[in-house]
Amino acid sequence: MTSTNTNSFSSAVFPLETMDVPGGTETILRGGRHLFPLLPEALAGVRRIGVIGWGPQGRAQARNLRDSLIGTDIRVAVGLRPDSASAADARAHGFTEQNGTLGDWLTVTADSDLVILLIADAALAVHHRELFAVLRPGATIGLSHGFLLGHLRATGGAFPAGHGVIAVCPKGMGDSVRRLYEQGAQVNGAGINSSFAVHADPDGRAVDRALAWSVALGSPYTFRTTLDSEYLSDIVGERAILLGAVHGLVESLHRHYRLTGDDPVTAYERSCENITGPIARTISRHGLRAVREQLDSAGQDAFDRTYTAAYRPARDLIAEIYDEVADGTELRSVILAERRLSIQPMTEIGGSAMWAAGDTVRARRGEGALPVEPFTAGAFIATMMAQVDEFAERGHPWSEIVNESIIEAVDSLLPYMHARDVAYMVDNCSRTARLGARRWGPRFQAAYEQIAFPAAEGEGRPADPKLIDSFAQHPVHEALAVAARLRPSVDISVA
Amino acid sequence: MTSTNTNSFSSAVFPLETMDVPGGTETILRGGRHLFPLLPEALAGVRRIGVIGWGPQGRAQARNLRDSLIGTDIRVAVGLRPDSASAADARAHGFTEQNGTLGDWLTVTADSDLVILLIADAALAVHHRELFAVLRPGATIGLSHGFLLGHLRATGGAFPAGHGVIAVCPKGMGDSVRRLYEQGAQVNGAGINSSFAVHADPDGRAVDRALAWSVALGSPYTFRTTLDSEYLSDIVGERAILLGAVHGLVESLHRHYRLTGDDPVTAYERSCENITGPIARTISRHGLRAVREQLDSAGQDAFDRTYTAAYRPARDLIAEIYDEVADGTELRSVILAERRLSIQPMTEIGGSAMWAAGDTVRARRGEGALPVEPFTAGAFIATMMAQVDEFAERGHPWSEIVNESIIEAVDSLLPYMHARDVAYMVDNCSRTARLGARRWGPRFQAAYEQIAFPAAEGEGRPADPKLIDSFAQHPVHEALAVAARLRPSVDISVA
Repeated sequence: MTSTNTNSFSSAVFPLETMDVPGGTETILRGGRHLFPLLPEALAGVRRIGVIGWGPQGRAQARNLRDSLIGTDIRVAVGLRPDSASAADARAHGFTEQNGTLGDWLTVTADSDLVILLIADAALAVHHRELFAVLRPGATIGLSHGFLLGHLRATGGAFPAGHGVIAVCPKGMGDSVRRLYEQGAQVNGAGINSSFAVHADPDGRAVDRALAWSVALGSPYTFRTTLDSEYLSDIVGERAILLGAVHGLVESLHRHYRLTGDDPVTAYERSCENITGPIARTISRHGLRAVREQLDSAGQDAFDRTYTAAYRPARDLIAEIYDEVADGTELRSVILAERRLSIQPMTEIGGSAMWAAGDTVRARRGEGALPVEPFTAGAFIATMMAQVDEFAERGHPWSEIVNESIIEAVDSLLPYMHARDVAYMVDNCSRTARLGARRWGPRFQAAYEQIAFPAAEGEGRPADPKLIDSFAQHPVHEALAVAARLRPSVDISVA
Repeated sequence: MTSTNTNSFSSAVFPLETMDVPGGTETILRGGRHLFPLLPEALAGVRRIGVIGWGPQGRAQARNLRDSLIGTDIRVAVGLRPDSASAADARAHGFTEQNGTLGDWLTVTADSDLVILLIADAALAVHHRELFAVLRPGATIGLSHGFLLGHLRATGGAFPAGHGVIAVCPKGMGDSVRRLYEQGAQVNGAGINSSFAVHADPDGRAVDRALAWSVALGSPYTFRTTLDSEYLSDIVGERAILLGAVHGLVESLHRHYRLTGDDPVTAYERSCENITGPIARTISRHGLRAVREQLDSAGQDAFDRTYTAAYRPARDLIAEIYDEVADGTELRSVILAERRLSIQPMTEIGGSAMWAAGDTVRARRGEGALPVEPFTAGAFIATMMAQVDEFAERGHPWSEIVNESIIEAVDSLLPYMHARDVAYMVDNCSRTARLGARRWGPRFQAAYEQIAFPAAEGEGRPADPKLIDSFAQHPVHEALAVAARLRPSVDISVA
């Protein structure tokens, strides 16, 4: 992929801004409720939005869109499969057959001018042709990630001609898309950043339609990408720092601390709790470098040694993941897994010994600030930087890099993992993410245990000053600082 | 795959036998040096055999073939790439330019009536067309596993028309193919069992040619398979019980024993040493059931609980590996890895803490018999049985199942791992096997740690009597016993 100018764009409706990023600029739209009056103009021609599916994203997006469009004549309806188990919950949230906002997915698709496909990946793979077949002329297809593009490529399929194809991709879980939107009622602009992509634009109105959708979701800022770039960074990111790598890391760290003498609770605090707590919080508020800077000199030395030892094995694995996602191999494995899972359900991973300590650790919170553990922080930030570097080398826009590698982690996923735990998250996310995390998490665990930790602790294996200097001078800090200025000063509140 | 009668065959030269296997019979050829006088007749039309490559298999097969054909007019020559680093070693073993038995690979290929391709998989993928292009009319192509078939399928290629394509696939590493052959000078029939396959047979002589090759390698017995079946069982087996699973298992067991209070040396003895020592030896001499039967009642109970807990997660993983190998996904990932490895070398996995205890454990040997550890044995044998069951369900011939799941493990690989260690084996086997073991070993480790061990130790999680009964009554014991009767009573001697 080459970094072309796809991230610059113009709008007939919204006031855009230019954001400085390393080596250039990106056009972005800063969001906020003050823009809601512009939604009808941006959505001209769209009278009815159909949200197909009531998973975490469908549940959040349908409600945000409906609430943002109150007072307009644009109606948001939810389409579900016959006998969907989700119908009761959709009704409980005000989408009902009686008021015409809940119906069969084919009917809702046929009735809508913008059809947002938020059913599970496996269902989308099986049913997209039925849905495409009933689209009304000129209706726009909306996606929230690039899975369907990957699937169509893998199977020789195509989007139907004559229809716009756009994507708005919140850089956070569905639940946080809703929760921060609600917080946005008090703090204008609270929400989850989104990327958008225009894949087909037969009537020339795709950009404004996508921007309106993103503003209505509550995105603090919206940046442009391509469906390909989004697909790659999304699928790779959830297998790496967002989910798979963090699971592998906490499993390996917990054992590491147990084997060097810690009791299970202390080991939990120095591993999982440290990442989801003080490390995530520090990055979110003060950036990546602040984690290292707040350590004393011995701590910085430990950080540097672990960073040095973990960076290369993590980078190798992320390159491997990237290659397999780009090649279609990863998607094949998801499809094969779905076939097996139709016979034999997926086992859960929350049974490993470390999670038993989680309740005790959570009950203890507030007894005193937990200090950043340098060994843990070095390994975690090395992995995060490995993802940043791999994405930069593969030509992703900087907004996508920092959102998919850092902001989504520290402002959306890690706070959830802090409230529950990491294994719970892996066992409860989307099937594609869950399969990917289970596939790659153990690879990260093994890389830390077999390669990184022995090197970090080996005699005569000092930190690599070039690698540490490259971290200190890295352009990502500038990109993250710019993106952080666009972020409202509100943390997600996880019940 | 369906279990067709491909494993029955006839020979114009060799005296065949019928072996009872569960649900039927298989035709086999029992080997031995007394058959060497039949080799010229079986190889009629073959005056020159070219062995291309001097990796572990090439090095063993070229020497065995040459030594077995002494006194005939069939010459064995080794073909190497220009400037091959292996030339000196080949010369040291008597293959020289001077005596016409060492040459450029294209020249040797062009001069040979049977061309045995034993170069590395990656090289075969790149260079097979050049080699095919210089084959003399009527020359037979020989393979020792099905990789090339998988590669040709994946890339839309084909074997050249008009040439015989046969495979003889020793069920053990190259080094053991040579070592047991040498031991066979004293104990007639010592060697590594082989499967053979006939993929193309334009002159009707392929079966005898393949049998002769196998006899000349020293195979105690030779059974028939197809190139597809061989490919699947070979690639899956090395990712599972032969290499990947055993690595994941010993890593997880070592940590398990360390965390329950053992010092590193004791933990090593209860995990790795237990499998490569008493468990492998017991299976080799007395079969699978003997491992459980020699335990006392508490030990049998512990075995049964771990067996029950480990069987399902291991089976799920082996089904996943099988699907990905059959689909071509696994091969894609090897090809992608080879591309990355041309830039960034593969890291080694021998650095993890457990291996540091290996030297002490090996030095201690002989101080007293190490008892079988029931927890370790239950997990190991459950994984072995999971592979047996998966292969049986997919229709593999029983000889292939027991050789690729049990005999190759306990009579070839585990004795080597006992002399070195498991990580050393993983770091020093073929690239395809090494990549596969690194890809799947961590998955097994995570499955034991996160699913099997917590279940085995959980309160109120008794053994499943149906599963234990199915193990006790399993037809594999009969198949293994029949195969074991064909095995000479000599253990491999690892220097």
